[in-house]
Order: sequence, then C-alpha cells, then structure tokens
Amino acid sequence: MQQDFKYDIIVVGAGHAGCEAAVAAARMGARTCIITMDMNKIAQMSCNPAVGGIAKGQIVREIDALGGQMGLITDAASIQFRMLNRSKGPAMWSPRAQCDRIRFIQEWRKVLENTPNLHIWQDEVCELLTNKGQVNGVRTIWGAEFTARCVIITAGTFLNGLMHVGRKQIPGGRCAEPAVLHLTESITQHGIRAERMKTGTPVRIDKRSVHLDEMGLEPGDEDMRTFSYISEGHPLPQQPCWTCNTNEDVHDILRGGLPDSPLYNGQIQSIGPRYCPSIETKLVTFEGRDHHPLFLEPEGVDTNEMYLNGFSSSLPMDVQIEALRKIPALRDVVVYRPGYAIEYDFFDPTQLTHSLESKLIDGLFFAGQVNGTTGYEEAAGQGLMAGINAVLKCSGNSSFTLGRDEAYIGVLIDDLVTKGVDEPYRMFTSRAEYRILLRQDNADMRLTPHALRLGLATNKRRSVFEKKEKDIQSLMQFVKETVIRPEFINNFLQSVGSSSLRGSCRLSDLLARPQVNMNALADNVPILQQHLDQVSTRRKEVAEAAEIEIKYAGYISREQQLAEKMQRLEDIKIKGHFDYASLHEISTEGRQKLIAIDPETLGQASRIPGVSPSDISVLLILSGR
Amino acid sequence: MQQDFKYDIIVVGAGHAGCEAAVAAARMGARTCIITMDMNKIAQMSCNPAVGGIAKGQIVREIDALGGQMGLITDAASIQFRMLNRSKGPAMWSPRAQCDRIRFIQEWRKVLENTPNLHIWQDEVCELLTNKGQVNGVRTIWGAEFTARCVIITAGTFLNGLMHVGRKQIPGGRCAEPAVLHLTESITQHGIRAERMKTGTPVRIDKRSVHLDEMGLEPGDEDMRTFSYISEGHPLPQQPCWTCNTNEDVHDILRGGLPDSPLYNGQIQSIGPRYCPSIETKLVTFEGRDHHPLFLEPEGVDTNEMYLNGFSSSLPMDVQIEALRKIPALRDVVVYRPGYAIEYDFFDPTQLTHSLESKLIDGLFFAGQVNGTTGYEEAAGQGLMAGINAVLKCSGNSSFTLGRDEAYIGVLIDDLVTKGVDEPYRMFTSRAEYRILLRQDNADMRLTPHALRLGLATNKRRSVFEKKEKDIQSLMQFVKETVIRPEFINNFLQSVGSSSLRGSCRLSDLLARPQVNMNALADNVPILQQHLDQVSTRRKEVAEAAEIEIKYAGYISREQQLAEKMQRLEDIKIKGHFDYASLHEISTEGRQKLIAIDPETLGQASRIPGVSPSDISVLLILSGR
Repeated sequence: MQQDFKYDIIVVGAGHAGCEAAVAAARMGARTCIITMDMNKIAQMSCNPAVGGIAKGQIVREIDALGGQMGLITDAASIQFRMLNRSKGPAMWSPRAQCDRIRFIQEWRKVLENTPNLHIWQDEVCELLTNKGQVNGVRTIWGAEFTARCVIITAGTFLNGLMHVGRKQIPGGRCAEPAVLHLTESITQHGIRAERMKTGTPVRIDKRSVHLDEMGLEPGDEDMRTFSYISEGHPLPQQPCWTCNTNEDVHDILRGGLPDSPLYNGQIQSIGPRYCPSIETKLVTFEGRDHHPLFLEPEGVDTNEMYLNGFSSSLPMDVQIEALRKIPALRDVVVYRPGYAIEYDFFDPTQLTHSLESKLIDGLFFAGQVNGTTGYEEAAGQGLMAGINAVLKCSGNSSFTLGRDEAYIGVLIDDLVTKGVDEPYRMFTSRAEYRILLRQDNADMRLTPHALRLGLATNKRRSVFEKKEKDIQSLMQFVKETVIRPEFINNFLQSVGSSSLRGSCRLSDLLARPQVNMNALADNVPILQQHLDQVSTRRKEVAEAAEIEIKYAGYISREQQLAEKMQRLEDIKIKGHFDYASLHEISTEGRQKLIAIDPETLGQASRIPGVSPSDISVLLILSGR
Repeated sequence: MQQDFKYDIIVVGAGHAGCEAAVAAARMGARTCIITMDMNKIAQMSCNPAVGGIAKGQIVREIDALGGQMGLITDAASIQFRMLNRSKGPAMWSPRAQCDRIRFIQEWRKVLENTPNLHIWQDEVCELLTNKGQVNGVRTIWGAEFTARCVIITAGTFLNGLMHVGRKQIPGGRCAEPAVLHLTESITQHGIRAERMKTGTPVRIDKRSVHLDEMGLEPGDEDMRTFSYISEGHPLPQQPCWTCNTNEDVHDILRGGLPDSPLYNGQIQSIGPRYCPSIETKLVTFEGRDHHPLFLEPEGVDTNEMYLNGFSSSLPMDVQIEALRKIPALRDVVVYRPGYAIEYDFFDPTQLTHSLESKLIDGLFFAGQVNGTTGYEEAAGQGLMAGINAVLKCSGNSSFTLGRDEAYIGVLIDDLVTKGVDEPYRMFTSRAEYRILLRQDNADMRLTPHALRLGLATNKRRSVFEKKEKDIQSLMQFVKETVIRPEFINNFLQSVGSSSLRGSCRLSDLLARPQVNMNALADNVPILQQHLDQVSTRRKEVAEAAEIEIKYAGYISREQQLAEKMQRLEDIKIKGHFDYASLHEISTEGRQKLIAIDPETLGQASRIPGVSPSDISVLLILSGR
C-alpha cells in the first residue's frame, strides 16, 4: 500500500478506541492510517492497569467475539485474572485482569505494525478538512495533509486537556504529554457541540516502600480463564494485588486540603465520573463513613510501580502524600508521582447516529472518551463499531448496529446517541434490559456470526466458534435426551441437598436444579462424563455454557420474549417521517427532544428522556401501526 | 529511605547522563532523587538505536570499568554487535551495538527502580533554588520543592527545545514530548552563559515497505563480544542491518527543497553536529559527490520500525519522502514520521571545573548534552563523573577527575572545560594524545581500581577484574619466560610469512612480530596452549590483552613516557596563584583566556586555545619550577 497520504479512513488517536477502529477498518480492506502523537504510547492505559470488571468485562468479550483485539491483548499482557461475581448468577459474572502496562502497549503496537492496509503516522492532528458538509481529511501540526473518505476522532482526554494538582494547572493530554489545542475548534465550527468533562487518576507508588505484609492479599483465580474466546492462556507470571483501608486520620488530612482542591474551590467546573470518584469526593459524598477500601495493584511483572486504586485525587501533592502516610502499611510510602485530575473536551453524542457518525458532517465518526464515556472497554467497543461503520460507509453498505438485546456495546451506543451524557458514562449491568441474554459466556454465540459476515473473524476464530457451537448443541441435546433412573442418582441428589427422584428424569431437568451442576453431575453419571470427555478443547466453557442455557432457560426465554416485543417498536423506522414541530399532539418537551435526537426508530424514540409513553402512542398511531 | 523531599543529590533528567549520575550517586551512599518528566522514556535513545562506535565504544567500556551501567544495559538490549576497525591497530578497535530501543528503556528503568537510596519522581523541574551562591534544591511545575546539597542538570535537548521540519516550528524537547521552558532562565540569572545548539534525526521507516532483498546486508560479528567486562552475553536474538546509497535523483529532489530548509533559509542559526550532518548539509558541503551511504537499522526485535542512519533531515516532509522514493530499494517506502531538527539551550562548559561543577554556583553540576556535547556515550560518561563528584562534594572529599592519559572520559571533560565548544562536541580517537593507552580492551585495567576505591564496583566486578588481571600477568610472564627452539616453530613462522629463527627465542619476542598472533602460536606451541587452557573464563579477552601489551609494547611505553612528561605540567597547580590581569609578560589574548578559564594546573593552561607556549614558559618560571 503506497504512502500517498490518501486513505479511505483516517483514525485520529491510538488509544483503546483508535486502535480497535484502525485494525478493524484495515482488516475489512479499507486503506487506513492511524495518526498518533507518540508510537511509544499506543493503547497506553492512562489510569489503572486493568481491563474488564463488572459489565466492562462483558464488553471486552463482545469486542473479542466481534473479531476485535482487546481480549487477545489483555490475555497476552495479563498478570492476574479474576472472574468477578462468581457467587451470583451468570448474568453477573464479569472477567477482570490486571495487566502489565508496558506489555499491553507492546502487544498492541505489534498488532498495529503488522496489520496489512494499515499505516501508522506519528504526528498531531490539528485540523479537520471538510468540503460541503463532508469530511475529506485532516491536517497535522507538521503540515501533513491527509485525504480520506472517513475520519474517526478518538482523541481521548487530549483535546484542550488541562491537568490539575491542587491549585496548579498545567495543559496536557496526559501526564508528561502535550495537549491537542486546535482540533476542537476545527470540529465545533461545523455546529458540533463540545463540552468539558473531568476525570482523574491516583498516585503511583514505589513497591519497595510499602509494608505489604501488613496488607490484605488478593490473589487471582486459580481457575484462570481468558478474555478471548480463541487465546490459549496467559504467558506472563501471575501476581497478587493487596488491599488496605483509609481511616479517620487519613480523612482528617484530606479534609484539611479541601480548600485547595480544584474540585471544591471552583477551579474545576466540569463533571467527573460518578462511579470512579476521587477520594476527596468520597469523603464529601459519604460523610459518615470512617474508612474506604483501597487496592494496591501491580503495574507489571518487571516494575516496582504500583497503582493505588481508590485513591484518585487532585488535592495538593503534599496533602496526598501526608494522608497516605497515615495508613499503617503506607507509613513509609514513596510515590513516583501524585494523582491528578484532568479536564478535556468531549462532543455531544446525541449529534451522532447509531453508527457513531456525526449527523452534521458526513463521514466523520467519533469514538471513545470524546463521546463522554469513561473506561478503556467502553472506548474500545465504540472504536470497533466506528471502524466497521466507516468501512461500510466507504463501500456504500448500510451501517452495522447492535441491538440492546444483542450486546452491551449496543446498549452503550444507543444510550449515548439517544440519551446523551451529562456526566462521564460508564457501563453497568443495570443499564441493560436483557442482562441474562448479554452474558460473558455467550458473547461469541451472540456476535461472532457478525464477525464472520463482516470479515473480521480469522480462520482460527471461525473454527473455534463453530466447534464450540456444535459441542454446546450436542451436549444440550444429549442432556435433554438422556434419561436417568432414580436409583442411579438419588444418593448424589441427596448429597447436594436436592430432592430425590421418584421416577426417571432427563439430565437437563436435573441440571435445571440450582444445587446440581454439570461437573458434579458428570462425576455421578458416567455416560455424561463420557460425552464431556469427547469435547476435546474448551471443555470448561462448553460445559458452562450448556449448563447456563439449561439452568436459566426460563429467564432467558422471558427476556427473549420481552426483546421480541420491543423489537416491534425497533422495526418501525420513523426517521424523516415526521415534522415534529407541527405535531401538536405531542408534548412540548417531547417535540423538542424528538427534533434534537431525530430518532431512527420508534424504539429509540421511546428511550429519549422527556419523550413520554403517550407521545410514543401518538407516533405509533400516526405510523399507521 | 523516607520521601521527605530532602536529598543529598537531585538529578534533573533521566537520559543517558542523568541515569548514570543517579545510580552512581545512590550506590556511593548519597540520598538521591532523579526527576524525569516521563518514567516511560527513561534513557530513551532519542536518535539512532545504537551504542558505541569509534571512540564512543571506548567511552562505554570506560563507563563500565568505572562501575557504570551503560555497558550492561547495552548488552542486555543489543541486537547486533560489531567490533569496528578490527583491521587496524587495537587503539582503533571500537565496539558498537544496535539496540532494542524499548528494551534499553526497560532495562534502565529496572536498574533505577531497584537501586537503594534512589527515588524517582515524575515531574518537570522549572526552577533552581539557591542561597548565597550555593544550590539548595529545585522546584517543579507541580509545585514540589526539593532540597539538596547538590543538583545535577542533565536536561538533554529539552531546554527551550524547538523542533523544525521545513518551515514548520514546534516547541518540544523531543518528538511528542513537551519542552522545558523556564529552567534556563533560572540558571542563567546567576551569570551562567547559555547558547543554542542544533541537532537532528532521520525518518523512521516501516520495514514492510522496504525491498530489503535489493539492499546490502550488514550482519553483526560472529565472534560476538560484550560491552561490559562482567556481562555474560546477549539475551536477544541478533539482527542484521542493511545498506544502500543515495543517488543524483535523490540529491536533485533534496536540493529542490533547500529554500525551505530551516538550515539554509535562516530559520535555524545555531550550529549542528559537524560529524553527524543532515543529508542536505552533506549535499551542500560535498557538492561533487554523486552518492552518500545510508544504513537501515532495526529498532528492536519486535518492531517493524527502522532507523535510516545517514538521512537526518529537517527538509519539508514531502521532500524527504519524495527523495527517499528515488532510492530503488525504497521506492515504496512508508515512513512513520519524518526527520526533524531540534534547537536547544546548552551552557558554556568553560564555566565548569573538571568535576563538572559550576564555577559560579556551588553544588550545581552539569552533564551531557547541556554541556554542548553529542552522543549517548559522551553524555553517560559525564553523568557518571558528575554523579561521583557530587557525592564526593557532599561528603567533603576532594573531587575525582581522570587524566587525559587515563581515559577518553578524561579527554572529553578536559576538552570541554578547557577549550569550550562552538559546535556540538563529539569524541574521536584523534582528540586523545595517548590513543594506544586508551584502548577498549584495557579500560578495566585503567579504571576499575578507581571503581573499587569509590565503592562503585560490585563484588562480581571485583572478582572478574582481579582474576583477569592475574590471568593476563601470568600469561605475560609465561610468554616472556618460555623459550622455543627453531626446529619447533620455523615451519609455522614460514607458513605465516615471518622470518625463521636461527637460535632459541622467547615466545614474547615471537608475539611481537606482526604476523604472529596468540591463537595461531598456541596452535603450534602445546605448552602455550596448555597455559591458555588454564584460563577458565574470558580466555579470549585475556589472550587478546596480553598479545596487545606485547605487540604494541614499544608504542605503549613511548606514550607512557610522553604522558609522564606532560604530567609534570599537570602536577603544577596554579589555580589562585596568579593575578593574570597584572601579568604583562603574557600576551593579551593569553591573559584574557587564563582569566576566563582559571585553569587548575599548568597542564590545563597549556591546552587553552589562545594561550601560547611562551605564555606557559612565563608561568612556569613564575611558578619557580
């Protein structure tokens, strides 16, 4: 591929969103260029060195199922894996991994460097080039002019980034990196609305200075799983995390610093992430609590640098350090740098379509933190979708969107473009209507067929997927068809506290009981064991998936029915059908919101805040349905 | 060690100078803090991914012999090793290694993180704190105030750094990194003179786009040596480099860009490195040459990024790329980023003593590019010496300097503080009077005794050194004492074209012949072979060292005599003895220069440009010698 500065797709920024966007686009055949200020900071984890967690872990599994990279990279770089919420239902199971920060960058960089159709350009984009409402390229600070059919903005926290520690304010996109100063203006002059958000990060600590023996130990899972459906394991040695708590002495010192806190003295006006607050915000919000938990997380296998999860702060640095010293295990703490807050520009995501394309500039896409989200996973999911949709746009195909019943990524994007954001958006399982459908174990079954169709699945992914699908179906069929007589199983049932059988019973009916799990059942039913033994690879995943499908069949089918019902509203396309301003049957607020969002479907309209059920009824009637 | 922001020594910057300074200081027991803007760029190789080369390789060996790190890190990160100038005399042998850029950073970071007495602080120093002509700390942009007895400035190209590509100018300390804007003023207000220099770096190339099969192959040595006297080998897989040439088509395009060259349109006024010129400078300087050689060097084992040695440029980026495409093997070239030039502040090194301490501010040291030098090796050597001397200062001991007959590092520092710089200073073997004394093979014999005395040598280094010294002496004694009869050796002598013996002869006399080398002699003299076989480790080095000592004994003793003669002038301390202004026997220029430099010794005075031999005679007489 020639370097003529003419591309199908330009990706601006090589963070978690940009990297997924670029690789997906190039793999789908688009001539793609990713522009990053610093090739040594590709996919830098700006905040904590971990991927996944509740709902976020599901997103990573979805990215992987769609042929994205985040799962594979995380496996290659992970130094601790945990499946959170194992004690709860499988809708809540969420994988999470600590990662080696440097390795994460190196693995991503290797992927970018070796992807055909993809060039990397190290520079800073300062201007969007457009022509008659259509994007046609970008210009950089070094004067390079790129033309492209589509441009994807994934600038993270870099746009007019301003960092704060106490009363000190320094421009920058991230610690030690310059801010991007002119791109926002170049975008907003087209009517795209920019606002400010804030986020923050905690101190980094020298492990040598910590009394680890006085902290709680939090090891990873012994039964280590992978993030990717196709990776084979974790090459790096595993490491534990440590825990401790703040106390009233810590809080007293932090409170003493509040007058100099940029969050509380008016220096920062923009809103930070509600669910990832600074330690000072926790003190103010939860005034009665006498302690808050902290997690000391390793930054890699080769480094003494540790991340103090839970202690995000923009208080003056001496306050941060003095407070830390009041935690017994941290009494001798040495920090590499203080925590800081950062303010940055984001763009109103309600000005985007579901394909993450701007409604105002044709061919301009936005993904990641610039859409008002937080989290590497949310960013990567958007990046992947923007990359795919930019390619589809270039080739004149219709866009690719995921339903709210198909993926957390679908929920995420629908929420963003329908409801907008007034604070940094983070995914939770509670944001999904169909949680039992959107499990971490079945993201491949939900989404890999899309990846196959889009050309994003490798041959390996195809064969792993097809084999797993076949194995699950075969196992499900086997347990549904296999009948067992009471005398062979009642002892076992009694032993697990489940009621005895009177007559013969299908294995699937036993598995539906909460006390009975697949492995224990197989231990007591030799023919089931034999069947399982025939599953040569990923046996755990196959057994687990089949068990969940059987055990939760009732919940699953109920959610499926609900989703189908909702689908009727989703099927009613209304974009362009109404002149809302003249629909006086609709409430004033409803009219205003409908004009602003211009929903694609009646389903989307029904989720717009301020559009009432009766407004929807009016539209339903007017649609003639 | 508590983090109370009170240290013995603060090192400002964690490049090649800063890292050596900090580690040496901490190892010698000083409470040390190194302040770097970015912990991910520690010891970043800003330009080519290689260490060593002619004269520079010797410096690295000296750093290693003194207990510094650069040799060990280079071995751990090297992906190609070559001993340059093997065909010339051993005074010219110079080791050189390509390095994995990322690994180099990681290895250095591991050392810094794990050195006792050493803290790392990630921040930017903006102000020097002094009190009555004495340094007492620094202040950072985040407002941290550090106190220290000594401060070592190793800011590289970051002070008021300004990058140029064609007519575009962007502030920055290095590609993608911010410049340091206020520190220079804070230093110059004390009377320290700052001037501007310029350096540059070439394009970085995507290996996938290069027709490597159309380039010359340049593999490393098969007999791979190490940089460090104590390392065991090279853990990374070795890689070749490639070569090609520019041609008239390339030159035509480059010439067409000259009006937009910041070097030739007046945009850059400061002076660049004479011996590392940009490609456009080569065209202008060597107008008649129809080609220039280029070297394509790998940047690491895991990356497609390659460095095009010889093509440094600050021409507009389209000119750079268009010109490259005229080289057949680069006709499809894809670059990651263009070359650029950078201007930066340096401080007049004649305002320093031989310990690299400022003559104007007590306790303030300077090392590396801020002293007007180029090269990682020159920087590291100065850093090591500044670190050592800062500790000696703190403990009230006298300073540690190396003579011009002891080390290239001695030549380097003496040149800097005596002669000053009007262009970026690079080391060459020709700068040394005693080249045959300052070999790469004997840096340990020259300098490790200092390291042992200073406490910078590990136990391993001590034992390796002592064993090697003993083995060399034993071998020398053996060949001097062992006599061989003609009938046993004349066949061999004839076969190598050396004249036959008439009577018995000592092995050492045979080794003195140019045609006879140790290994071939041992092949023909079983008792020599037996003796060599008793050297259990580092046999090659031992044999080589003994052979060189014998073969070049005449040259060596001549240089030793010269050095001793000169030493007489070095022994005459004159600092503070004369009121030069009133010495009318001395030439006006001589007086001015003597006042400016205020030399320590008559030897140093004799090397000051503008001080004539008759001026020295006057001083000699007045000294009563």
